[in-house]
Order: sequence, then structure tokens, then C-alpha cells
Amino acid sequence: MQITGKMLIGKNSVFGLAGNINAIDPSTNQQIEPVFGFATADDVQQACDLAGQAFDTYRETSLEQRASFLETIATGIMDLGPVLIERAAQETGLPVARLEGERGRTVNQLRLFAKVVRDGYFLDATIDSALPERAPPRPDLRLRKIALGPVAVFGASNFPLAFSVAGGDTASALAAGCPVVVKAHNAHLGTAELVGRVIQKAVADCGLPEGVFSMLVGAGSQVGQQLVGHPAIKAVGFTGSRSGGLALVRTASQRKEPIPVYAEMSSINPVFLLDDALKTQTAQLAQNFVDSLTLGAGQFCTNPGLVIAIDSDAARSFLELAGQALEKKQASTMLTPGIHQAYVKGSSHLAEIADLTLVGKGQPAESPCAAQAVLSVCSGSTFLTTAALQEEVFGPSSIAILCKDFNEVLQVSESLEGQLTATVHATAADHDLAKKLLPGLERKAGRILFNGFPTGVEVAHAMVHGGPFPATSDSRSTSVGAKAIDRFLRPVCYQAIPADLLPAALQDNNPLQLARLIDGKLTLA
Amino acid sequence: MQITGKMLIGKNSVFGLAGNINAIDPSTNQQIEPVFGFATADDVQQACDLAGQAFDTYRETSLEQRASFLETIATGIMDLGPVLIERAAQETGLPVARLEGERGRTVNQLRLFAKVVRDGYFLDATIDSALPERAPPRPDLRLRKIALGPVAVFGASNFPLAFSVAGGDTASALAAGCPVVVKAHNAHLGTAELVGRVIQKAVADCGLPEGVFSMLVGAGSQVGQQLVGHPAIKAVGFTGSRSGGLALVRTASQRKEPIPVYAEMSSINPVFLLDDALKTQTAQLAQNFVDSLTLGAGQFCTNPGLVIAIDSDAARSFLELAGQALEKKQASTMLTPGIHQAYVKGSSHLAEIADLTLVGKGQPAESPCAAQAVLSVCSGSTFLTTAALQEEVFGPSSIAILCKDFNEVLQVSESLEGQLTATVHATAADHDLAKKLLPGLERKAGRILFNGFPTGVEVAHAMVHGGPFPATSDSRSTSVGAKAIDRFLRPVCYQAIPADLLPAALQDNNPLQLARLIDGKLTLA
Repeated sequence: MQITGKMLIGKNSVFGLAGNINAIDPSTNQQIEPVFGFATADDVQQACDLAGQAFDTYRETSLEQRASFLETIATGIMDLGPVLIERAAQETGLPVARLEGERGRTVNQLRLFAKVVRDGYFLDATIDSALPERAPPRPDLRLRKIALGPVAVFGASNFPLAFSVAGGDTASALAAGCPVVVKAHNAHLGTAELVGRVIQKAVADCGLPEGVFSMLVGAGSQVGQQLVGHPAIKAVGFTGSRSGGLALVRTASQRKEPIPVYAEMSSINPVFLLDDALKTQTAQLAQNFVDSLTLGAGQFCTNPGLVIAIDSDAARSFLELAGQALEKKQASTMLTPGIHQAYVKGSSHLAEIADLTLVGKGQPAESPCAAQAVLSVCSGSTFLTTAALQEEVFGPSSIAILCKDFNEVLQVSESLEGQLTATVHATAADHDLAKKLLPGLERKAGRILFNGFPTGVEVAHAMVHGGPFPATSDSRSTSVGAKAIDRFLRPVCYQAIPADLLPAALQDNNPLQLARLIDGKLTLA
Repeated sequence: MQITGKMLIGKNSVFGLAGNINAIDPSTNQQIEPVFGFATADDVQQACDLAGQAFDTYRETSLEQRASFLETIATGIMDLGPVLIERAAQETGLPVARLEGERGRTVNQLRLFAKVVRDGYFLDATIDSALPERAPPRPDLRLRKIALGPVAVFGASNFPLAFSVAGGDTASALAAGCPVVVKAHNAHLGTAELVGRVIQKAVADCGLPEGVFSMLVGAGSQVGQQLVGHPAIKAVGFTGSRSGGLALVRTASQRKEPIPVYAEMSSINPVFLLDDALKTQTAQLAQNFVDSLTLGAGQFCTNPGLVIAIDSDAARSFLELAGQALEKKQASTMLTPGIHQAYVKGSSHLAEIADLTLVGKGQPAESPCAAQAVLSVCSGSTFLTTAALQEEVFGPSSIAILCKDFNEVLQVSESLEGQLTATVHATAADHDLAKKLLPGLERKAGRILFNGFPTGVEVAHAMVHGGPFPATSDSRSTSVGAKAIDRFLRPVCYQAIPADLLPAALQDNNPLQLARLIDGKLTLA
């Protein structure tokens, strides 16, 4: 498949005329061909209009049709073969093995949502039978969830496949019955076009209305804002920076009809090392922590940006070993020149903070966008009085906090903003302290994990990739895992609707074989 | 129980010193004793601090404890006896029989949520077992929903019991495990204090932390804004005007940590009369429509403010009969002088619209706050070109729209803003047209009902009292019925947590006997 630089608007390929851009190879800072054109306001309008026109048809496709559409996309992505991986590697600087893994995750996500659609639990089918004898009589009441409407998706720079054109936001929105308009990330436009064409073809092959999928190219501050402001768009999925996410939230809330924005933004992912775990596993913890910190040049939303322990010999030994392990780590190429510049700036801001001491650094950077990893340390009281230490530095940078006692550990925990993850390392001997930590972590984080590291987000039914602000703009949801579909649904109640007008999910004979809540009792098919 | 004019802050009764107000009897416009004091900023702070302190303990009470707490409140409300009904009648002008019915609904709501809590479906308990052999290994992942945090509740003027201090918002928030701080509605302060004291006593009797419930008095623009701005508050429930709801949404979104607002605001509840139904049931439809329009002085969120039909002999006959029925309706006292003034103003605005013709009026008003019902009519094209006709006039006012054909009916339907309800009257002969109407109604409304009238909202598992903006500020939810609890929850994932630290909902032996999604399969207890 050839990369053309064109956008995908319904069934058409369109070269945008409002400006243009090339993808950049971050390992060389050289432009990659071809050039991509930016969407005009008319292009945005057309993509949104098509999505609006497709909505009623698409949301009422059968569960089987929608599941099979998702599987067609998954197969199409695998069928692209090495061309996809090669292009993604060139655009992002990410290693081939990592991208192959990410492709696997992407198609698994699509297949998970095919299962979610077939299971139909997301419909929340609920029936309260009529009680004609009651005074006053109760009418027949039935509830199902329906799709919210067309969704605007903004992919992330750091997952060119799994959080991008056919990533979790797109998969869950399509699963819910929502047409999708993607704003392709400018950091991997060729990858975006390849995947976008797979979806465009799947729409046609599955006989769906063309407006089910479009993909636009342009600046977030222009095309992105126009997209979120369009009346046909009814929800937004976004993964990226806090400033980018908040700009979309603002636009969405100022519309004539405000709409929900699911922005996954900023998290520093505290890791708590409790005493006995720290004492008995010092060396292994140090190595595993450094491996997690430097994985993928630290470019994960779940990168461990804080390590918290009570000051002790074991803690100091942990830091020494971590510093040594860090010194062996090669600098890795970051995703874009912009991300690299922000990392260099963020690291040097930290270096200026007086009470923050350098623990160790990775190998110095040679290629233009490579990042040198950094671990620093400060006291609990410094952390509690220095707001700048809570700001995410996107990349392989972390701060260790040595607290004077467990009470200060709790204070540090309470002082944190909302997080995607919180990690605890604990042996059985630490469980009494862990119990005291847990309620606060539940209030702060979407995922709490023990004796592991937060990088690596499993795509499963029980996953939560979300959390209180500013980790996300909406803590009531997850952007990874089966429950991500709930973001794009709303309940509708049908009162005394004649049987021949009822949606299949709510018909008496249960043709979709759904689990349903009938008169307050959960009933399997 | 004596009404003192004091607020309830945790276990204390406090007379607010920031101003004061008396409730007013709308049938006489006379003040009712005693005087109520307005909360100072310190009072608001204290109520919110107590709620924050109570949160971790309250959210981890057992399901049985929480259910029994809700039932204790229900019993306490019934035990108040006639004093509650008498005070509510005096403050609201609502008839005793209506208030007795509303009290029944209020305690039924509390009992429904006790059942919802005991069933535990709201926890969404989900387990994905570890797959240690897989490459890479999958960790053990478990998900439950936890309470969002303390909730600020703003009661409605028109339901002094069911949408007020112990109404649906409070019941569902308490059920979810959220402490509640109520801003009492100034239209029924004595009623609020009576019910508030029942909750305060139930908190003590059930051995819960005092901060689980507080009730403040003051102006929405001051105390209400301070409450929503307090960092301990994590969500807001509101029923009232569009301007009031949007003011809270604005404050909530401008906080350092933005929080969700569930504001139920404005709806004109279109009623579609399809041809055969209109022809075969003309007289009955006219009478039932007028009964619904004038019920409770038209002061329902679900009041039928629009009636839409194709222009025909039957439609004109319907209007004639409705006008005659209306002329027999006595004027009823509205809830407050302010609401009455707004109704008079809204009605006279409508009367000035040139292409709107009067069909009929109810009996003229005699007592100071009584409302004269009005039905007007216009053409479909007038409606489509006159935005003012979509504005809610809260009270017994409705507009009939006579369309030139079914296509214009569809255009009118598409032009509507979001609604709480949409109603269709249809016989079997009308089902083909009804089918064409339904997709649009699903996009516009939270509840679709056939061959009835929208007033009367059943409290059940399948009820949706919600809908797209501006019916509510968050269409993904309902403020009535079992699913109202979902508004005050967020998911948390527990990864590889040691068994002795797992919440009961997620333990292997399922001690709470919950239905759980285990490895993707829904499993009953």
C-alpha cells in the first residue's frame, strides 16, 4: 500500500489545501516523504457531516455486524505486513520489536471489543414489567444503552498504533456504535494513513455507510478545535499533554451543546517501596525500577516518575544501585524533536531545584533526539513544599523521595494529584503499612499494583487506564480495556412501547441472547 | 419535631449568621416562621471538611450497613407523620394528597437504593485471572467501582421531598458511598430541616461518622457556589433552572480539579399525535393531555410543553376539545412568588409572538401565586423559524404545532433541543410512521413513551430521567431510578494485590455473593 499524503473523508482520499507537513525521522531529524496536506474548514465539515449522516444506520447495525467489522480491521492491519512496522519505526524512532508488540496489542484490542460487542453486556438491557394492578399502575419500562453519536479521536504520539488511528479510543467508539473522525497525529502521518486506509476499506467491505470513518490531518489548534466544535461530534477521545487536553475540554464545554471529553493527560505514577520489601529485594528492585524508567525512552503515560521510601540504609543502597544501573543505560531516541526539546527543558528545570540531588544519569545522548535518563532525590519535606516536583517530565526522568517516617510517606501520598497508577512494593511483613496506604491510593489513582512496575498496561476486562484529574479529565472511565466502551453510551428508557417497535435487545424473546436485569434480578441468557 | 431555622453541620445544629430568610406561603405570600440563618464561608468549609473526613470510613461500610442506613432514613421520614406534610403544603402550595404521594415515592426511592446496594451490581466486580504461562505473563487484574467522594446536592423547588434533602440525588449518592452536603432549597426550608434532622439522626443511630450528612442554608449564588468550589466536593447533583445549572457547571469546570455536575435543567417534552390515534381517540387524548398539562400547576420537568400533529380535521377537533377542557381547569397556586412571576412573564412573551394563536385558557387566577393555564397553536413552519418557541415556560403552558405533512413533523422533531421525554400516540395503523420518528427521538430524549403522558416518573430499574443537553448537563446518566447510583462511582483496578489486602467485592471466595464478570464471563453468585 502506497502512502499518498491524503486524508480520508468517507470513501474519498483528499489532499488537504490548508497547509502541509512532512513526518520527521527523529533519529536524523530529516523529513520523510510524502508531504501531507492540512484539512480546510470544509474538509472538517464534510467529515463531520458524513459521520452525522452515518450515525443512525451504523448504531443500529447488528452486534454481529459490528463485531465482524472490528475483526476485519484487525485482520487488515496484520495484512499490511512489514510496511506498517517499517514506516512506524522510521517516524517514531521506536524499535521494530516494540512496534510488533504494539501491533499485536492493537489487533487484540479490536478483537476484545468484537467480543465485548457480541457479549452485549454494555447494552445494560433492563426490563421492569408492567404492574397494571398496582395503584397507580406501573407501565412497562425497558432500558438499553445507545451510542452517543460521532466521536472525534486524537491519537497519542507515543503509541502510533495502539493509541492512534485504530487504537483503543477508535475501537471502543466503533464498538459502541459511534462513527469516528480521527485527527491523525502529526508525528506519524504515514503510519496513520496506512491504518486509516485499512479502516476505510473495512467500512466498504462490510457494507457500512462511508461516514463511519474519516481521518483528517492538520494542527490540533486548528483542525482539532474545528473538529471538537462541530455540532455533529458528540464526544472526544484524546491522549496527550495536559495543555492539549485542557484546550479540547474548554472548546467542548463552550459549545452550544457541551459534550464529554475523555482526555488522558498527565501522571507521574508514584512507586512506594515499603521497608521489608526494600530491605530484602534491594538490588532486584533497583534494577527493575531502572528498566521500567528507561523502557521506550520513558515515553509511557505510566512511567514511574516518583519513588517513595522511608530514609534508611536499604533506601540509600537502593539509590546507589539504581544510579549504577542507570549509568549502563543507553540513551534512546525520543519520538519527535518537540518531545525531546521538552524533555531537555524539563530535566534542566529540575536540575535547578536547590534541594534536589542527582543520583545518577544514563549514557549521554549522541543522536539528535536521544534522551539521557536521570534519577534525582529529595527529602519528603522538600517534596511537600515544592509544587514543581509534581509536574510530569515526559521521558526517562524520576525523583526519589526519602521520607523521615511512615507518616511523612502518607503525607506525600495525600499531597499527590490524581494518577493513572500507584504502585506498592511490599512483603507480607509490610501489609499493615500497606493497608494504611491503600485508601489514599484508591482516592488518587485508577490502578493500584503490587510488586511490579506500572509500565505495561494489559488490555483486559478489569483494566483501568484512567484516574482522577489531571491523570484524565473524567475519572469515571478508562481508555484501555473492555470498559472503555462505556464512555460512548447513554441510557434510553422505552415506556410502554409496542412490541413490534422495541429494539431487539429489549424484546420479550431475547433474540440477542443477552444477560438482562429483569424486575431487579440479573438473568443470564 | 420542632423547626428551629438552624442548619445541620455534621452532628451540630448551627444558626447561620451570614443573612437570613423566611419560607413563604405562596397561597398568601405571607412569611412562615421561624427565620432561617444563611451559612457563612466557615460553615460551608466545616460541612465540606467533615464530609471529606468521613469519606474513607463511609465508603467502606458494608453493603448491609449502607442499605440499613437508607432504610432507617425512610422509616424516619414516615415517622415524622403529618407534621412533614403540613409544613410542606404550607411552604409549597401543593395539595396534601400529592405530598403524601411524593412522600411515598421518596421512601420507595430510599428503599430501592437499599436493594441496589445489597444486590451490589453497581460495583461492576470484574476479575481477570493471572496467566503466568503467557508471554508476557498477564498479572491478576480485578476491578470494582468505588465512590467518587463527597457530593453537593441542590434540591428542586417542585419536589420538596422526592427531589430534595432526602431525594433521589441524596439517596443515590449515599448508596454509592458518598457523604452528602445538601444546599436546602429556600422555597421549603422547614420541610428541609425536618427531613435533614431525620438523616442526621440516622447517621448517629447507624454509628456512621457525622460528616456523612450536612445541610446548609443560603443563596445559590453564594453558599451554592462556595460549596461547589470546595476541594473536598467531588460531584454535584442539581435539579432546577437552566441558568442555575449552568452556573454550577461553570464553577465546577473552573476548579483546580474540575468535577462532574449532574444538572437536570430544562425540557419541553414533545408529544407526537399520529394520525390514526388522533382520529380514533380525539376526545380522550384532548382530556388526558389537558389533565397532564395542568397537573400540579404544570410544575413538572416532564410537563408536555409541545403537542405535534399533522394539520387535519381530527387535529383541529383535538384542539377545540382541549381548549374546552382547559377552560374548566381551576388556576392552581404555584410553588413560589418567583416561579409565578416567571410564568406570567413567559406566558406574556408567548402572547406577543405574532404567528402564535391562543387555543384556550384555564380559569383566571385569584390567589396571588395562582397560574392560569394556556394552550396556543402555530404552524410547523412558524415553529421551525421561531427559536423562542423552544424555551421552556415552567408551568401549565403548552404549544400545539400543526404540520403540513409528516415530513414537517420529522423536521420539527430534528429541530428540537435535548429532552427528558418524547411521547408518541399511535395505533397499530401508525406504526410505520412511528418507526420513522423513533431514531430521531432516541437521539433527542432520555425516555420515549407510547400512548401515555410524560408526567409521572416511575422509580424503577429501567427508568431514565435524563437526556441530551439542555435537558441535563450529562446525558450519560439518570437522576431517577436505580442507575442514578452510577453517577457517583469510578472504577479502580487492583493488579496483583495480595489476597489479604483485596476488597471484599473482589476476594476469591466472593463473600458478598456478587454477580461478577470473571475472565470475560458474567457469573452469578
